[in-house]
This record gives sequence, C-alpha cells and structure tokens, in this order.
Amino acid sequence: MADTTTLWKDLAAQLRIDSIRCTTAAGSGHPTSSMSAADLMAVLMTKYLKYDWATPHHPNNDRLIFSKGHACPVLYAMYKAAGVISDAELLSLRKKGSRLEGHPNPHVLPYVDVATGSLGQGLPIGVGMALNGKFIDKLPYRVWVVLGDSEIAEGSIWEAADKASYYKLENLIGILDMNRLGQRGETAHGWHGEVYAARFESFGWHAIRLDGHDLAAIDKAYAEAVAITDRPTILIAHTKKGDGYPPIADKDNWHGKALPKDMADDAIKVLGGEKNLTVAVQKPDDKKPAVVKPGTVTLPTYAAGTKEAPRKAYGDALVALGKAMPDVVVLDAEVSNSTHADEFKKAFPDRFFEMYISEQQLVSAAVGFAVLGKKAFASTFAAFFTRAYDQIRMAAISNATIHLSGSHAGVSIGEDGPSQMALEDLAMMRAVCDSTVLYPSDPNQTAQLVQAMAGLKGISYIRTTREKLPVIYAATDTFPVGGSKVLRTSGQDKVAIVAAGITVHEALKAHDQLKAAGIAVRVIDAYSVKPIDAATLKQAAKDCAGKLIVVEDHWPEGGLGDAVLEAFCGGPATLQVVKLAPTKMPGSATPAELLAAAGIDAAAIVAAVKKLAG
Amino acid sequence: MADTTTLWKDLAAQLRIDSIRCTTAAGSGHPTSSMSAADLMAVLMTKYLKYDWATPHHPNNDRLIFSKGHACPVLYAMYKAAGVISDAELLSLRKKGSRLEGHPNPHVLPYVDVATGSLGQGLPIGVGMALNGKFIDKLPYRVWVVLGDSEIAEGSIWEAADKASYYKLENLIGILDMNRLGQRGETAHGWHGEVYAARFESFGWHAIRLDGHDLAAIDKAYAEAVAITDRPTILIAHTKKGDGYPPIADKDNWHGKALPKDMADDAIKVLGGEKNLTVAVQKPDDKKPAVVKPGTVTLPTYAAGTKEAPRKAYGDALVALGKAMPDVVVLDAEVSNSTHADEFKKAFPDRFFEMYISEQQLVSAAVGFAVLGKKAFASTFAAFFTRAYDQIRMAAISNATIHLSGSHAGVSIGEDGPSQMALEDLAMMRAVCDSTVLYPSDPNQTAQLVQAMAGLKGISYIRTTREKLPVIYAATDTFPVGGSKVLRTSGQDKVAIVAAGITVHEALKAHDQLKAAGIAVRVIDAYSVKPIDAATLKQAAKDCAGKLIVVEDHWPEGGLGDAVLEAFCGGPATLQVVKLAPTKMPGSATPAELLAAAGIDAAAIVAAVKKLAG
Repeated sequence: MADTTTLWKDLAAQLRIDSIRCTTAAGSGHPTSSMSAADLMAVLMTKYLKYDWATPHHPNNDRLIFSKGHACPVLYAMYKAAGVISDAELLSLRKKGSRLEGHPNPHVLPYVDVATGSLGQGLPIGVGMALNGKFIDKLPYRVWVVLGDSEIAEGSIWEAADKASYYKLENLIGILDMNRLGQRGETAHGWHGEVYAARFESFGWHAIRLDGHDLAAIDKAYAEAVAITDRPTILIAHTKKGDGYPPIADKDNWHGKALPKDMADDAIKVLGGEKNLTVAVQKPDDKKPAVVKPGTVTLPTYAAGTKEAPRKAYGDALVALGKAMPDVVVLDAEVSNSTHADEFKKAFPDRFFEMYISEQQLVSAAVGFAVLGKKAFASTFAAFFTRAYDQIRMAAISNATIHLSGSHAGVSIGEDGPSQMALEDLAMMRAVCDSTVLYPSDPNQTAQLVQAMAGLKGISYIRTTREKLPVIYAATDTFPVGGSKVLRTSGQDKVAIVAAGITVHEALKAHDQLKAAGIAVRVIDAYSVKPIDAATLKQAAKDCAGKLIVVEDHWPEGGLGDAVLEAFCGGPATLQVVKLAPTKMPGSATPAELLAAAGIDAAAIVAAVKKLAG
Repeated sequence: MADTTTLWKDLAAQLRIDSIRCTTAAGSGHPTSSMSAADLMAVLMTKYLKYDWATPHHPNNDRLIFSKGHACPVLYAMYKAAGVISDAELLSLRKKGSRLEGHPNPHVLPYVDVATGSLGQGLPIGVGMALNGKFIDKLPYRVWVVLGDSEIAEGSIWEAADKASYYKLENLIGILDMNRLGQRGETAHGWHGEVYAARFESFGWHAIRLDGHDLAAIDKAYAEAVAITDRPTILIAHTKKGDGYPPIADKDNWHGKALPKDMADDAIKVLGGEKNLTVAVQKPDDKKPAVVKPGTVTLPTYAAGTKEAPRKAYGDALVALGKAMPDVVVLDAEVSNSTHADEFKKAFPDRFFEMYISEQQLVSAAVGFAVLGKKAFASTFAAFFTRAYDQIRMAAISNATIHLSGSHAGVSIGEDGPSQMALEDLAMMRAVCDSTVLYPSDPNQTAQLVQAMAGLKGISYIRTTREKLPVIYAATDTFPVGGSKVLRTSGQDKVAIVAAGITVHEALKAHDQLKAAGIAVRVIDAYSVKPIDAATLKQAAKDCAGKLIVVEDHWPEGGLGDAVLEAFCGGPATLQVVKLAPTKMPGSATPAELLAAAGIDAAAIVAAVKKLAG
C-alpha cells in the first residue's frame, strides 16, 4: 500500500506538471481545471481503469470520457503516463497538425471516443455506451465520465441522469470534479456537494462524496462505486482548481489560462520536478460481443395505386434492416407511434431504446452506440431535432455515424400548428460537416433511402412526411444518394420545377394542369438535398433557359432552394430561379389549406410557372 | 363553501365538456390531456388566478402558461368560462383562420403570452417572467405553469428548476398534471409522485403532492403554495387522463384523439350536459412597474488605427444602451467574461441575470422578459446557441422580440478547436421566421448594430468575433439593417468580393495585393446577412460580369454564401459565384493558420480572384 500510495502521489504530481508544461508551451489551455482532477485520474488509471492501449477500439475496454473536455491536458498527460504518446507530442498541444487539440477530438486521436468541449454531453453519450455494454454487446466494460461542476447546470446532464437510472446502468460511473470555480467565478452551488448528491440520489443514482485530493478516499470511493450493481454511481469529489500549486489553487481568474514560463517553472519545482513515469494499466477481459451474423435486407414494397406515409415506410424499412443487420439499434423520444419507430420496437424490443421526451439524450445515446460500432437510428418529430442541434454538431466533430429520422415536417402536418412543424430542419442538417440530407416523396423511395443511410458515414438525416402520399415509384427503382429523378420531361420544357417530399406531388399536379394548358414543364424530384444532383439541375437550367422553380415545405433559407442555388456555384450560369416556400408563420388548418396559404401547392406552382414562362 | 364546491364541480364539468366538444368538432386534438387538468384549472381560475381579461397585457396580471400546450382545449374552455371567447369561437378550434390553434399561439390570441407545444419550455419561460416580476418590475404577480408529466424528462425543465430556486422565485408555481400516460404509453415514472417530489425538492423547490381530482385538496394545495415566500412551489397532482368519462379515463391509446361524435355525446351526458357558466376571475392589483425614464444613447466609439474585438464592442454598447434604456436586461450563460456581457453586469448588476451553463434556459428566460416588455439581450459562445435552437424557433412562434449575441464564431477562434467554433450559426439563425442576422467586422459598426437591434422586432442575432480587429469605420458611419458597405471599388472591378466579419479584413488585404498586381476588385462588407442588401449585390454582379466571390468563416451551407445567392432569386441573372468557406473539420492552430487551412484568408481570396478573373 505504501508503494501504491507513492506511485499515486508521483503520478498525480506528474499529471499536474505535464498539464502545466503542455499548456505553457502552447501559450493557452486549461491547466487549473486539469490539476483539480489529477489525483482522481492517478488512482483511476492505475487501479480501476481496464484498457488495452494497443487496441483502443477493443470491445472490452473501459471507456473514459472527459465531459469537461477543456481539462484534456490531464487526459493527454495520462496518455503520456500510459506510454502511448511521447513527451514531445505532449508538448505539441494546440499546435497546427498536433493530435492534441484544445479539446479532445477522435478525428485525430484513437484513445478518444467522442469529441467534448460543448459541456454536458459526455454523460449523455456515456449512457449510450453503457446501454451498449449492458444490453447489446453484453460485455462487462465500465464507462467512466469525468464531469465539471459548471456543466451540471446543463439540462442534458439530468436527461442522462434520468435515463441512466431508468436503465439501471451500474456500468456507468460519473466522476464529478467539484472544483467550485467556473469560467467567470464561482458556480451556482460552489462546494455544496450535498446539493449535487441529493439531486443525483433523487434521480436514482448512488452518490459518494469525497475529498478529491485524498488518495485513500479516492481509492475507497472507486471501490464502492464498482461494487454497486443496481444503479449508476456518481463520485462527488471536493477538489481545488489548480490544486498542487498554492499561488493559483482555488483562485479566481485562473480559468483557461496557461501559466507564464516563470510561474510554470516554479510550479514544477513546487510539485517535485519533471517526471517521466510510465504506469501499467489493467488489461480488459477478452470476451466477445454478443452479435449474430448479418443476413440480406429485404425491403418492404408498396404497390402502385396505393398510398403510404414516408414515416410509415421508415418504420417498415427499419424492421427490414433489423432482420438482416444485428448491429442496428433504434432510439426514439416517446413518439415512436408517430415516427413509426415502433414497428422496429415490436419486432426487436431488445434493440429498441425509449429515451422518453429528451431529444438531447436521444442523439447523445445514438452517438454512444455509434462510436462503439452500432448502426444507430434515432427518430422524433423533425422540429424537435432542433433541441439537439448542439449534440448533432458535436457528433460530426466526434466523427460519429448516426442516422436521424425527422417526421412531421413542414406546414403539411396541418392542424397541430407551427410548434410541431419542422421548417428549419433542412437548413440545420445541411449545415453539419459532411452530412447527408434526404427527403423522400414516396414510400418505396423512403425504404430504399433508409437502407442507403445504413451504409453512409457521418451524420445522415431523412425527413419523413406525416401525410400518406401516393406511390409514384416502383419498388425496383433505385435512388442513389446524390441523385435525383426527372419525373416529367418533354423536348420543349419551358421551366423546371424542383421539388422534394410532399411538394413533388404538388409539382406533378401542376405539371398536368400546365400540360393541359399547353405549357411543358420538367419535374425533378430532388430527394437528395445534400449532396444535391448538380448535373441534373445544370442540364435543366440549360434546357429551360435557366428558369427553375424550387418548391419546398421549409423556410426559404437554407433548405432545398439554397441547395439548388449552390449547385450552380463555381461555373458561370444564367439563371432565373424562383423559390416557393412558406414565408409567414403558419397557423392551424388542413394540410391542403396550409400548402395553399404557404404558396407551395399545385395552384401556386402553376401560377409561378405561368409568370416565369412569360 | 358548499356553493364554491358546486361552482367548482360545475365549472370543471364544463371545462371537460368543452374540451370534448371543441376537439370533436375539429376532428383532432387532445381532449384527454385537457380533462386531467380540468379540476386543477377550475379552482385556479375562480379562486387564485388574478387576471384582468379586458387588459391581457396588464403588468399586474398573473401569467398562466400551458407548458403542456397540447392541452389547450381546456385553456380555451377557460377563456369561454371567463367570457372572453364565445361558444362559437370555441368550436372553431384548429380550423383555418381560427385564433384557437392546435397549440396556444400569441400571434393570434392576446391571452396567451408564449407559444408552447414543444415540451419543456413553459417552465423555463416562466422563470424569465418570474425574474421580471421579482427583480425588474417589482410587482406581486404570480406565474402559474401547467406541466405535463412526460415533459419532465426534458433537461430544460431541470435547468429551469435550478434557476428558479437559485433566484428564490416564490412567485413561480408549477402545476404538474401527473396523468401517467404519455403519447405512446406510460411515462418513465407513471404515478410515482414521490419521484417528482424528491427531484424538485432536491432542486430547492417546495413540493406538494395531491389528488388532482379532489377539489378541496386542490384548494388546500394552492393555499399552501401561495403562502410559500422563499422558493418556488410545484404541485404534483395525481390525475387521470380523460378523467370524468370512464370509457377513456386512464386508458391507453387515447392521446391526441378526438372522441367520435357518438362517444362525445355520451361523454357530455355522463358529465351532466352542456353548460355555459361564466365565472368571475379576481382582478389584479394596479401597482406600477418599477421603471425609470429613458435617456439618450451615447455609443462607445473606437479610434482609427486601433483594434478591438467586436465582442468587446458588444459589451460596451450594452452599457450605453443600459444607461439610456431602463428596460434593457442582459443574460449570459456563465461566459460573460468572454462575450463581454460582463461590462453590462458591472454597470447594472440589478439588470444582469446569470443563467450559468444552461443555454436553453438562457433563451427561454429572455423570452419571458421579452413578452413582458423588456429588451432582453442574451449572449453565449455562438456555437452554444445550437443548444437552444428549439427555444429560438419557438420564440419566433411566440412573436417574442429577443436579441442574441454569439461570440467566438468560426475557425478564427484558433487553438480551442472545433467544439468551440460556431460554423452553423448563420444558417440556423437565417432559418428563423422574420429573423435578422448581423455580422459586424469593426467595433464602431458593432456598437451601432447593437443599438439597431434594440429597435428591431422578432429574433435578432449578432455574430461577434473573438479576435481584435482593426477599426475600419468612423464612429459617424451608419449601418442600416439590410444595408452593406462597399469598401473598395474602382471603375473597372473584375470581381466583387463579398465578405462579413473577420473575412472583411482578409478581403481588404487581398484587394491591396490584387491592386498591386493590377487586378481591380470590389470589396463589399455584407454586415447584414439577413436581410441581405440585394441591390448592392445586383449592382456588383452587373459591374463585374456576374463574378462574385463570397468568403465566410462558416460552413458553405446556409450562411452568407446562400444569402448572397438568394438575393438573385426572382429575376434573371448571369452569375459566376465562388464560395470560399471551410469544408473540412478544422483542428487547433493559430487563427491565421486556420483561416489559411480553411481557404478563407487573403491568399486564398487572391488565388480565387485570379482564377475567376481569368
């Protein structure tokens, strides 16, 4: 024990010193927020963490998430202590080309599972990882999440706390580094650990309060945590920001500041001088994840002459994927009977996870599953993904592959009114790095695009319409991502109508009315909003003297209209593009009345074509 | 008491009957979720609510928010019982042109303060209203928030719970209609009122459990709640969804369904038949809000030759507004030393509200202040407004006027890495109904735009840059919303460079380098991203043979580039637009290195111009 205590002391000193050294070398960063966690991390990595550093994606590895991502200097110092990065690399922190970014980023660093830095997201992602371990892979790994006290104010933490106890995630352990000081002064609850303890306990957790700088107390707390078998545990560790170097310890105005060289030198001296310990970390078990062999996907099909809602086709397609792909998991936010994710739930209850009405948790749990190799599909009303835009943005930084389905898009949902109408989802989802945005108009197309999503990398989004729509495609038609379908054309098209989803059907009606009036128009189904089919649009512009009408059930900003315009960037183009889209706040009425009021129904298209065709 | 009890019984029956009648007439809606709240509402409106129906915006009125907005049939039934809508109007529910939308909407209905329907937002907005009553207007009104049990899973509820007790909002009373059933079955906690009570108590609330169908118990609970003087109170009312009509009471699959005509007739009979009671509601006090007279704004100015960050100019301008406008309130999410909202805090601590790290609460509290007549400015890092996109979207539906400032935008923040870089905020904010999106490049311009925001209606957003930027405008220059500045032009411009914020300075550098190389370019500062200055862009396209380069520190989707393209919609245009924008996930490096890596620095602009100018 004496030896162990010495090791812990030395390692903790090294973690502090290295946190100081790398941030001072960078000239920025968060040494003080790292130092408060050093003792907790020293004991964790030498006695409790199980991790095979040679195989970061080993399915039995414990996962360690720094929800307080700004404290990554101590995480990187742990990597050095584990012997997987050199001292030289440690000192490359925050510099161009370094794997050690200002916040942990799995794009570049294999030991990091998810990007953090937007606070309050590590614990919710940890819930997804713990669900995966307990219910899907059935492996005994633990998920350790290091939390700051400021971030406990984020509602996403409480969404996670609720789901973690609901699913009895004993494999999830939070480590709250309660150092009292936030970015601009004291947090709302300071060192009142009893407040955090009472809250987590009321949310069904086992809470342990401890002195986060007492190595024996830390050891005891971890031992207690890993012995709990019926619920998640949170360690509430009373710590000091900047602990170990009195001139900055528990002092205001030391958040996110590197120590000047002279102070850094002094601090290193006070802490016992530079060290280059390499410590052993326990190897994990080598159990196999509970997976079964994949099969062949047989998609549902919908007969010509019938009608079906794209959201229903989404649910049906999920079932087809579920049968063939054992790694598909589905999550929903208490609206599965509307999004039709419940079709999957009925077929595969063990792979369906109800997140109740917590959309942030919905997306974060999907990210947790995704980075551990599952094909995670998450659904809610399209409007409510706005609740999780930060999580979606961060998922892209995490390099996570998640599949999102938003139902109830646009004014066409009708009577429920604008709070339920997604009119910004395409803009939001387009503006995500390397995202894919799909918007089907037909159930056969929907099913095929859902299957395509399962093979896409990154963030993919499908906008599924609430209303039943006529089947316009054969089950044998194919819909490559990045493609489009020219549904109507003649040798003499005057105008091309570009539509997607419900407006495709309005465009087809408009086509027939215009044809009867002797005006030939092209109708393009731009089901792939991102990437958009630039070639087909350019051909249409060429054939129609640049006259395009884009009609969409979405605000005019950022959606299909902007995607179409972007297709013409780069080269020269002569264009006359008319955007038809809702511009006033809609109310409650029938879908047909609202499409008309928004100026995106067949009559509005006909009028626009007549005006444009001149 | 016997008379009162009879009145309550009759009124509660009428509220149930009218909830059934109007939804059956509409053919859709939420009668069962209304019926569970009927007894609670009958006692509230006849004994505790203080409201002058003739003056919905009376500053002393209690505020009543249906956070469970789908239960609005009972709210509309209360309006009928108050005598402010007719039975005929009640029966217009959900029909085109009716003020009674599927969820409550203040666009059309003066008794509704804020739109609800996206769950978990009523309580956070109520916190803003209660803060206004307690700390700004200093009026004794109460804020009553009716909550559903499903929505308690939203993290935003716990952000609100935390802030409500932190600010000791005894004037905030939540009424939790715990009817056990969510949209697709039982909630996570069913009728376990002890779970909700323990959680709210741990968050510093006074919790009262009661039978929500026992009129005497309801009366007692309200009496207890209004007597609490040191913290907010939540009533946890055990209720039955569909209570009052046994065939649907506490039954699954009755969420959001109107009763068929025959069942409705039977239910009305069971409930004692149609009624047309009109009840008296207590009038509020007639105290005056604590306001002082406005003065004249004297904006800060910045001298030519100096540098300052737009975020600092934002803070300075807030102080100037604060001095002249007593109705300005400022909120921040624990980053006020970065957003520089702390300048206002130092000058006017009584009008500054720290929301800690809870961005959803930040925006919702601003909405609460806004709908009670305050000019609310809310700030955080631009990236973190993504956390509150649903709240921003809903604020637009609420017709609320709020002013948002997002600092730390784009790759130019440098070393902190992508988690802290807003690269989607312009897309997100453009896709909000009737929003204004501003992006200044200079501190004088920033100050003027902040003042302009204070006069704008709806959602306005300013993107303030982290880096210190050279002063390029005189303090006397003016910057109308919807305008732009042509910073460089000659009689022979080959290409127009459209920039905003930090890229304006790169464009100016590029201009000088190109001029030295004999290539004349126009430089346009498009500080008003929405509305965009279409006239200036069209003139530039005309003068430069359609050759435009748009350079922005934002993903290529939905931002300045798309705004510029939109300016050319409608009429014919010959264009060759090149978008320069980050397209790969950035890492950590210096601002200059990251601008270069993203292809949006002066060198990239010069190269693009040379290519385009041919």
